[in-house]
Amino acid sequence: MTDMTVDAIDTSEADVLAVARRARVAATALAPMTRQDKDAALLAMAEALHAAGSRIVTVNTEDLDRARAAGTPDSLVDRLTLTPERIAGIAEGLRQVAALPDPVGEVVTGYQLPNGLSVSQVRVPLGVVGMIYEARPNVTVDAAGLCLKSGNAVLLRGSSSAYATNTVLVDVLREALADQGLPVDAVQLVPGRSHDSVKHLMRARGLVDVLIPRGGAALISSVVQESTVPVIETGVGNVHVYVDAAADLAKAVDVLVNAKAQRPTVCNAAETLLVHADVAEGFLAVALPALDQAGVTVHADERVAAAGERAGVVTLAVTDEDWAAEYYSLDLAAGVVDSLDEAVAHIRRWSSGHTEAILTDSAAAIRRFVSTVDSAAVMVNASTRFTDGEQLGLGAEIGISTQKLHARGPMGLGALTSTTWVVSGDGHVRT
Amino acid sequence: MTDMTVDAIDTSEADVLAVARRARVAATALAPMTRQDKDAALLAMAEALHAAGSRIVTVNTEDLDRARAAGTPDSLVDRLTLTPERIAGIAEGLRQVAALPDPVGEVVTGYQLPNGLSVSQVRVPLGVVGMIYEARPNVTVDAAGLCLKSGNAVLLRGSSSAYATNTVLVDVLREALADQGLPVDAVQLVPGRSHDSVKHLMRARGLVDVLIPRGGAALISSVVQESTVPVIETGVGNVHVYVDAAADLAKAVDVLVNAKAQRPTVCNAAETLLVHADVAEGFLAVALPALDQAGVTVHADERVAAAGERAGVVTLAVTDEDWAAEYYSLDLAAGVVDSLDEAVAHIRRWSSGHTEAILTDSAAAIRRFVSTVDSAAVMVNASTRFTDGEQLGLGAEIGISTQKLHARGPMGLGALTSTTWVVSGDGHVRT
Repeated sequence: MTDMTVDAIDTSEADVLAVARRARVAATALAPMTRQDKDAALLAMAEALHAAGSRIVTVNTEDLDRARAAGTPDSLVDRLTLTPERIAGIAEGLRQVAALPDPVGEVVTGYQLPNGLSVSQVRVPLGVVGMIYEARPNVTVDAAGLCLKSGNAVLLRGSSSAYATNTVLVDVLREALADQGLPVDAVQLVPGRSHDSVKHLMRARGLVDVLIPRGGAALISSVVQESTVPVIETGVGNVHVYVDAAADLAKAVDVLVNAKAQRPTVCNAAETLLVHADVAEGFLAVALPALDQAGVTVHADERVAAAGERAGVVTLAVTDEDWAAEYYSLDLAAGVVDSLDEAVAHIRRWSSGHTEAILTDSAAAIRRFVSTVDSAAVMVNASTRFTDGEQLGLGAEIGISTQKLHARGPMGLGALTSTTWVVSGDGHVRT
Repeated sequence: MTDMTVDAIDTSEADVLAVARRARVAATALAPMTRQDKDAALLAMAEALHAAGSRIVTVNTEDLDRARAAGTPDSLVDRLTLTPERIAGIAEGLRQVAALPDPVGEVVTGYQLPNGLSVSQVRVPLGVVGMIYEARPNVTVDAAGLCLKSGNAVLLRGSSSAYATNTVLVDVLREALADQGLPVDAVQLVPGRSHDSVKHLMRARGLVDVLIPRGGAALISSVVQESTVPVIETGVGNVHVYVDAAADLAKAVDVLVNAKAQRPTVCNAAETLLVHADVAEGFLAVALPALDQAGVTVHADERVAAAGERAGVVTLAVTDEDWAAEYYSLDLAAGVVDSLDEAVAHIRRWSSGHTEAILTDSAAAIRRFVSTVDSAAVMVNASTRFTDGEQLGLGAEIGISTQKLHARGPMGLGALTSTTWVVSGDGHVRT
């Protein structure tokens, strides 16, 4: 969270609470709004971003200059950078959200009771959503769009390194809301660049309904520990691939290489391989050279290291730090297990509960693995890279939850709603 | 929470964490269990309670003697008391839970993607559930039954005044589990009678998946503020009845009297009446005498007080404390509003988000009220007393959630589950 303390400017609790109170008022106005009104606003926001392209790029340059002057690595500066093409992509995202169904009003369950009472459980907005996130300014617009569509007011607390960029983005979105006659306070930036403003946001229980931190493990863990506002934990992935005794080994190699190497810097990339002893020799003889060719460094237990030697592939010795690691790089921890239950026990010990994959043709093994691993997603004969809202058909996602309450796994618009029981009668009383 | 500090005995963090760790091991064994095995255990638990009736009554007497010696009011002593009849009722509750469908394995959503991947979202147990509750020892058995049925291990922290009774109840349940070959640590009492053990439980993040406090406002608020384990808030109800301009006034009187007076000591009883000015005179002329006859004391604003004078019913002057009160007694705050929106604004300000009722024949008024009040349940032309798991057909309930995340309103077995995404392919990789 170092980038949040750069240019520290004190923000008073009163400032943050004032913003949160305005958000509550806006949320009350948003709740009964029709899909038509919300979609019109989303399209107007997309149009406004287009129209303000050069203004946004100019302000973004200030953030980039400050970041370079502070010695920020090129990769982070790149994540901060907005170009006309990137702005067009962000605007297109808003149009895609407009095309999604409105989650508000969806009837989750509905039935009639013997006494004639009609019961339904209906989706309603959460109210005020706080987003705390790191460098990428596209999250500012994505979160604003998803929250508006689901009838929520949003409080945005991006990184201080993107403060000027986020400010102009929010200004543009609010101008579009005003033009459409919607409450501008539906989208607000939390004032201040210091950690103080995050702290005050985390204590605004009663005003803010949920906080969603998006970023590295340190950010998420600090929010989870300190917040009195309910939190949805997102994203950190120590992801496992288990190759079972009954696996199709050729398919297993393809899935493993895809899970590890197709895009190693994301949370659904594999970090650990576990292979059943019965097939370890045959599998590793093909898998280790394939991983090597994909540029992957294997951190191996004794049996995997021996297989590496036989295959002429150099491996490093695996440590507990490796089993615990979310590398987000072309590294992979690997070990041999003597049973499916041993694989599950390993996963339950080390996993972050994001995604695990099993490769097998045994229905019994699938059943056992699925009912015991205890993670947000289980891939059966498929790459872990599919744990993604768009890939699973949810449309845009607000994040991937690794907690068990409320929402688990990729979160679409539904995760930004609560429900209300609506019970209708004709003067019914209890006797 | 005074009853929790009586007979304070220090409990070390290590003791509580040891219990929680055993619960995690039990939870792993419970997760893949079939409905048949769980139902057999529930029936065996019911049988064991019957068989141990006199042993339970004897131990219960110790708690009752201690309570009387400490000057505990008769009403609380009554809540603590177990008789053979009450034990039979508690055992019958377990049989009813056995008869309910198993929530584990329920497919919440399922579909196939264009690329042939099969996607489903399946209910799985939460893992380890911590219950923190006050006097009534029946909660010990009810919670154990509901948690077992939903595949969760439970940690029970009842009030210190029921410690001996809870200990024998849990012993009996564990003996039944052992007889059935189920892990006995699926049901455990948290050791210790002091507040220390509650504190350690609230900090057992990573070992305990959720805490559910059941009891008064002070207990719930202390758990919500102090816990790092996720909490489901339950129960406190400042419940409103709004009589709209388009209400059927005769039905409205019946519903109001039922909501307030049928059982005033429960959380779904009405605490505040709001009447639209257009019908206030006619409605109050009938409602105030009816309330009076039911023994209700009305805390009235000026216009209601004037109606009281006309009807010959004495009222008290309403204060902000009354608007905020959950009386749980035969008291009712009452005021006249000039519009539905004024009623909603009053409710949004004072409600605890449990249940609100609207009495009206106007579809537009229903629509506006439902989409703006922001509570767990809305009763339309029905008594607020219907906010109850059994009344709404959920079977036994673990509590009534007044929070927005995860579960809202009456919580049945489904609220004790999380979900896992299961994605099945044939060697699918991402390109």
